[in-house]
Parts: sequence; C-alpha cells; structure tokens
Amino acid sequence: MVLLLKAKLLDYVDRLPTVLLNGDVASSLGVIEGSRVKCEYGGISRTFFVAISSSIPKNRVGLDRKSAKALNVAAGRPVKVSYCPPPDSVGYIKKKIQGHALGRDEIMAITRDVVDGVLSDAEICGFMLSQHLRGMSMEEIEYLTNSIVETGSKIEFDRPVYDKHSIGGVPGNKVSLVIVPIVAAAGLLIPKTSSRAITSPSGTADTMSVLANVEFTPSEFKSIASKVGGSIAWGGKLGLAPADDIFIRRCEHPLGIDPISQMIASVMAKKVAVGANYLVLDIPTGRGSKVEKTEDARALASSFMEIGRRVGIHVVCGITYGSQPVGHAVGPALEAREALQCLEGKGPISLREKSTALAGVLLEMSGVATSGNGQSVAKRILDSGQALKKMKEIIEAQGGDPRIRSQDIAVGSHVVSLPSPCDGYISEVDNNAINEVAKAAGAPTDKGAGVLLHGKRGYVVKKGDPILDIYAEHASKLSDAYSIAQRSKPITVEGMLLHLIPDTI
Amino acid sequence: MVLLLKAKLLDYVDRLPTVLLNGDVASSLGVIEGSRVKCEYGGISRTFFVAISSSIPKNRVGLDRKSAKALNVAAGRPVKVSYCPPPDSVGYIKKKIQGHALGRDEIMAITRDVVDGVLSDAEICGFMLSQHLRGMSMEEIEYLTNSIVETGSKIEFDRPVYDKHSIGGVPGNKVSLVIVPIVAAAGLLIPKTSSRAITSPSGTADTMSVLANVEFTPSEFKSIASKVGGSIAWGGKLGLAPADDIFIRRCEHPLGIDPISQMIASVMAKKVAVGANYLVLDIPTGRGSKVEKTEDARALASSFMEIGRRVGIHVVCGITYGSQPVGHAVGPALEAREALQCLEGKGPISLREKSTALAGVLLEMSGVATSGNGQSVAKRILDSGQALKKMKEIIEAQGGDPRIRSQDIAVGSHVVSLPSPCDGYISEVDNNAINEVAKAAGAPTDKGAGVLLHGKRGYVVKKGDPILDIYAEHASKLSDAYSIAQRSKPITVEGMLLHLIPDTI
Repeated sequence: MVLLLKAKLLDYVDRLPTVLLNGDVASSLGVIEGSRVKCEYGGISRTFFVAISSSIPKNRVGLDRKSAKALNVAAGRPVKVSYCPPPDSVGYIKKKIQGHALGRDEIMAITRDVVDGVLSDAEICGFMLSQHLRGMSMEEIEYLTNSIVETGSKIEFDRPVYDKHSIGGVPGNKVSLVIVPIVAAAGLLIPKTSSRAITSPSGTADTMSVLANVEFTPSEFKSIASKVGGSIAWGGKLGLAPADDIFIRRCEHPLGIDPISQMIASVMAKKVAVGANYLVLDIPTGRGSKVEKTEDARALASSFMEIGRRVGIHVVCGITYGSQPVGHAVGPALEAREALQCLEGKGPISLREKSTALAGVLLEMSGVATSGNGQSVAKRILDSGQALKKMKEIIEAQGGDPRIRSQDIAVGSHVVSLPSPCDGYISEVDNNAINEVAKAAGAPTDKGAGVLLHGKRGYVVKKGDPILDIYAEHASKLSDAYSIAQRSKPITVEGMLLHLIPDTI
Repeated sequence: MVLLLKAKLLDYVDRLPTVLLNGDVASSLGVIEGSRVKCEYGGISRTFFVAISSSIPKNRVGLDRKSAKALNVAAGRPVKVSYCPPPDSVGYIKKKIQGHALGRDEIMAITRDVVDGVLSDAEICGFMLSQHLRGMSMEEIEYLTNSIVETGSKIEFDRPVYDKHSIGGVPGNKVSLVIVPIVAAAGLLIPKTSSRAITSPSGTADTMSVLANVEFTPSEFKSIASKVGGSIAWGGKLGLAPADDIFIRRCEHPLGIDPISQMIASVMAKKVAVGANYLVLDIPTGRGSKVEKTEDARALASSFMEIGRRVGIHVVCGITYGSQPVGHAVGPALEAREALQCLEGKGPISLREKSTALAGVLLEMSGVATSGNGQSVAKRILDSGQALKKMKEIIEAQGGDPRIRSQDIAVGSHVVSLPSPCDGYISEVDNNAINEVAKAAGAPTDKGAGVLLHGKRGYVVKKGDPILDIYAEHASKLSDAYSIAQRSKPITVEGMLLHLIPDTI
C-alpha cells in the first residue's frame, strides 16, 4: 500500500533517518514505531525509520531537516510513503542472536549498514550483545576486522610500520607519549593513532592534545609520520574505523559492555588501516582493570595473535600490571607533564619501566635490538635525550611548540590535597575511584583537571602527609571532586579505620 | 557543572523524553548522545535523554512539545541543564548482562522504569537479550511476573476465575471464540483478555472486533464478564500489562526474539491481573510454530506450571498440533465467520476438536465435568446450542449485534483462487507463507482480508481444484498477495514440480 502524504517540515535534526507519522496512518501502512518506510519524491527514494507522533495530522508526513534534504522536498509537497522491510543485515543479526555463525558477506553487510546509519539502536545492540553472550569464532572476528577496515579509510606507508596499542582500563596510561619518540628515535616508523576518552579521564589523544594538534586528515597524518618517523593523532578524525565509534556510542557505552570479539576486531582493524606490520599490545591486568585474571589475559593475547596472523600483522602482547595507575598523574595536562618529565629523565619509575619495556619489544621485533636487549636499548635512547629530541620534532610537526618543558605545562589552578589520616603505608589504590574523582574535577574536557598521587601501593606515609592532590580549572568542580574523594576513598592507608559497626550507638 | 541554556521549542513530539544539545555544549557537560541530563526550570526538574544536533545553537536547549510541557517552559526562557547519571535500573540491567541473577527489587526497578518510559532502546534490549541468552531462574521469572502485575491495573471478581491462553504462533487459532462461550455456558466465569496482531494476520482481539467492541475500561470489562459469565476483550486497552507491550514493541519485534522467561512472565502476569484461579494453556507445537519439538513444549509447560504454583494459579497445559492453521480461515472476518460456524454446528473438525478439548480441561478443573469427560461435556454444550446462545449474549453485552449469523459476516469482495497445479494430495501447508499472504492482502487492518484454505495436509486434490482463496478489500493488495502466494507456495501438492535445475538451458 502506498499513501500520498504532504510534507510537514520540522525544524530539528534527528540522529537517525526518521519520518513522523500519525498513529492511524502507521496502522494503515501496517507499520509500528521503529519500522521502516520508503519515501519517494521527485524521483528520489529513501528509507526512513517510523516514529509515531500525535502532533502529525493524518494527511502529513513529518520530516526533520535532514530527511527533507535527503528527499529534496518542500513543505506541503506530496510524498509517496510505503512499507519497507528491514535490510538483509537485520536478518543476519537475528541469525547471530539465534546462535548461528555468520559468514564474511553477512558480517560485511552488518558493518556497512552500521556505518551507513540505517540500523536502529535495538539492531546494533542485538549484534553487540549476541557477540558478547554467544561469542564469535576466529573466522567471524577476522571477517569483522576486515569489514571495519573496508568501511573506513586506509593509509599506506612505503616502509615497515611499527605500532603500539593498549586495550586500556588503567588510569594514567600515558606510555605512548614515551614509547612513540623512543621507537621513532631508533629510526623506525610508528604512526600512532589513539582515542579520546569516552568514560575515562584522559585518552592518549586528549593527553597529546595538551602538547600539539591531534586532528589531522589521513594525508596530513601520513606526511607528518613519514617526515619525523612518528606521530600521535586522534583516530576519530582520521576515519579509520567509523563503525567502531558507532558500536561504542550506541551500544557498548550505554550497556557497559566491550565484547572481546569486537575489541579485538576494532583494535586490529585500526592497525590494518595504517598498514601496521609489527604491533606490541599492552594488556593491563589485575583487579580494577579490564582483564582481572592472568589466564584471561593470556587467552586474550592468543586471540589477538591469531587474528594478527590472519590479517598479516606480527603481534607481541605484553601483560602489564593494571591494578593501579601508571605513574602518578591522571588527567590530560598532568599526564602530558609527567610524560615529558619521563622524556627529560625525571618522573616516576613505573612509567619509565613500562614505556621502555614495551618500546623494547618493538626494537627487538625490528632487529634494532637483539633478543633480550630491547628494554636496555630503549633506556639508552631515553637517557641519551634522543627520545626527548624526537618528541619535540613530533610536537613541532603537529603544530605544537617544540620548546615546551614539563614545568611550562599549565595545570588546573584550583588544587586541594587529601592528607593521610594516619601513619601507615598505602595498601590500596582504587582505579575506579581515581577515575571518578578526576572526571568530577573536569577531565578530560578541562585539560588542567585531574589527580596527582603522592604515592602508590606500599609507600610509607605519615599522618597529615598529602597522599593525593586534586586539580581543577573551576572551583565548583574541585568541590564536587573533593566530596567524591571523601566518599569513595581512592587511596587506602593501612591502619585507617574504614567503618565503625554499628555506626550509631 | 550546570549550564544555563535558553529554551528552543520544537514543533514535534519525540517518543522518548529528549532534549537536543549542540555538540560542544554536550562535551562541556561531559555527556554524549544517549546520556541523560537533568533540566530545571521554575522549580520543576526532569530527566531527559540527550540528542546531539548541529541545528541547536550553543546557548540553547532544544525541547520538543512534550519536553517543553513537562518543564512548563516558554521559548527563550533559561533552563538549568546538568549531567544526570542513569537510574539504578540500568545498573541492574548491566548486572544481568554480566550473568548475575537479579533480585525482586532489582527486577521491580527495571520494570517500573520501562513503564515510566525512562529507559532507552539499548537498555531495554540489554535486558531482553540477556534474558534471552543468559536465561532466568524461576525466582527471577516469578519476580518479573509480579513486577508486570504491579505496574499494571488489576481486576477483581467475586467468584473463581477460569482462563485460557495460547502462546500463539499458529495461524487461524480462533479457538477462544468457541472456548469462552462453552465455558461460560457451563456456568463458569471466563473473562478472557486477548491481544491484537503485531506480526500475525489476526489476533483474537482483532477477530472478536468483527463481532463486537473489544475495547473496554477495567470496570466495563468486569461488569460485562460478571453479567454474562464471559467476555473477550483487548488486553491493551485494559492496561493489565503495560510493560509487556513496551518490551514487545521496542525489542522483541525489532529483533525477532521472544525470551521464554519474558513470555511466561507476561502471560502469567495478565492472568494474575484478572484474578485467574484456573488456566488452560495452549502450546502449539511442531514445525513452523513457536515451539518445534515436543520435549521443548514439555519443558515450557513445566515452567508455566511452576510459575503458576508460585503466583497461585492452577495451570494445565495442552500441547497441540501447530504445524498448520487451525481450521481453514486466516484473517479477522474469515476467522470470526468460521468460529460462528463452529458454534452453529458447522465448520471444520480441527477447530471443533481443539476448542472442545481445551474447554473440556477447564470443565474438569472446575468439577463441572468428571475427569476424562471434559471434552464430551464441552461437545454437548456446543451441540445443544447453549454455546451459541452464550456467544450471542457476550456479543450483545459487548455492544455487537446478537442476531448475527455466520453468513452475514462481510469478507473482502476481491477474491482470487489458487488452483492445484496437478492431481495429488496436499503434503505441506506453510504457516509463515500463509501469514505473509494474509498480511499482504491487508489483514489485520482490513478486517475482510485473509486466506481461506480449501484443504490441509492429506487432502486429495485434482488439478485445477481451488486449494486456497485470497480475500482482500482492495484490488491492489489482492494483487500483491497473489504475487507473494505464487512465489512463497503456502500449499504444496505432492506431485508438483517444485524446481527445475538448472533453471536455464
């Protein structure tokens, strides 16, 4: 059945291609909320989701700005509206929900429709949750990886590409800002793409943005990395894996899931897209990080390596300690400052050790260092000042100020310290609580906001010693963050009285 | 952080409580598409989902009609906008996704938030898919049942209530229109609520609506059923299980799932809501129906009976033959006509047998019939004309014409017959194809549309004999339905050449 409805133009833009219909009109078309209809006007035909609205008269079809533009239709003009079945990809999603494995073309169809914006949240969540709860075979993860690559842009370099990635989950993990210059200083090419924070106080791209621009087109990124041997850019702007961003925003983030199959495919797709040949993968492990148990980390590592073999990337995985922050700083400017300190030969030992260990893996893969000597070569490059020099070249190539020193970096001017409540030693640093406090203080939007730890597990403290500083750009956010810190206890000092039971007499 | 944004009023109504923000404003609030914000104006505070729109200036918050009304705000007035964390129920949904069982209060919180319209599609699908893929314990199903009851309206009768339900999945299942009058004629109270079709050509409520009104308030429904002993009403209007409707429309229908736990809870909740004490449950089983294998039907029956015990309903399950339609008619008017024929002592044997068998179970449960004699008592009531008389009382009480005879019912005036392509016998009747053809012909919106089978499995047919008639109210839909029937072959005659391979020389 085809209805002829007059266009009613609406002054807003919906996030999905949607038309609004009166409930009775929808019934007579045999569609409900969320069904699809085909709309035709002047030789143009497009598919839209149906929203039911009593504000739309029975002889009208409501079109937001984007939908009206897609049909190139003016107010009052007649639009042909008819039922349209869901695309084939929806059938494949249902098939996966029912527990059947998907083939190459089926996964490709799903990913393409995700990127084309023609799937609903329900459909995307159906795909992600069935991945999460049913699991995916290595074949399916390989197809998913390739489908993400094929729906994004690609960058090709003319020499071997080295890369580093962390699956995330540990606060303050600014190691890329140390690893990239070490590896590039060794003469290798390391065009590092990175993400902005979605739920954490700072992504690598947020941290790097304190020192330089991070938003480049693929050709700008290629030219920077080719010129200085390394770059740290925001992957989102490069459009390497647009599907991934949609999966995260429309399902993973709202439902708090990160299906392993999707994580592997998304990481590996971004590496294929920059033409990576060698990859060191950081898997932070332990309580309070993404992977809690070492055996799960090993299993994850072996899946990454298997997919690496299938897509032509040599992968070495490093299982690292993830139960407390890397270094002492959390938040874009504080982390950028700490990374620079490390390159300047200062800064915390944990940052120096983790960065040189992972950089060393790439140096060994390349043959620059012999087996077993990667970390010591990396430390030599760091201690010689070559890595700092390379970082300044990268900063300059990315439009930043190469004369920057760690002490020049502006951090939030509103600061409060949490004192130790007693003599003792730090027995617990809680990743989640640290993240919460840093975010409440304004990170990552306020670059100067964050948390600086004065100690980590095992540090001896005296009553009244500052154990943690909170930095903010706005007094009101500092006060929010301080209350959260009081309640959530990001640092526990052994000897503290945690609770008094019963708490009333 | 709290922003003061001027209200921009938008002339449409979104299906969820939503405000539109500029992308930069969203970033500074630390929210993304689908996050929640709290909006305050003039002492009123409400939570809304965030949609990001470039059509909204940075100093504005876009409000659709409903959102503007909720805040009672006029254009240009300043609204306080701040981040709002998801409700607790979202945490419980995440917990279920992670594989943990939910408690009574947690399930109650989810169902209440579903009914209150404060959960997104992603969140609702998260709950339904985790039910589907993780399963639910009997405790969880019991809690879910009770939560659906508590969020809907209830009806109380002053004598024992008998009820009948089918889990659906078989076309032409108009047995309720025969069972209800038989049971009521036996002096029992059977206030039957039923559904309208969502994906099938006719729900019981659609079929009954051909003969009488089906939309009543709870008090009207109570008074009708109390007066004549039986009623067949549309449950949607009664508001017995509003949660159920939302689960179906926002997740089950788009994703083609019907989690067993949700099905059981939804059925049993509706029965608790009408105060049912005795229930006969029809589980159509076989290829092409909801439950394909008898052992699965048995397991489902035992779950229904267990939940029945927990909520105080005596349940007897009937596993019935579901691989082809019940009777010969599919579509509202055709089915209503066939049900009346059965009550008049005519009509197909399968309808008479199934209806009296299930009615007989209730007669035995009540003691009206002794054990093993239920069906014969039901047949006596049917053959005596008492059931027809009772049906006419019910029709009259529901505002229909009690003088109606089966031959008076108007069916679609556009008809086409499919002839048998050869001599042979019917070897296959395809439920899905029958549904597709009937829906293409216009059912259930066009009440006269549908399909009439001239035979079912095992019938001997001669070449050229009509095997199936398609009825429609509009010529164009008849032609659509006819093409679908040509392609999807709802009836297979043994001896037919199905495919010629290769199909080109």
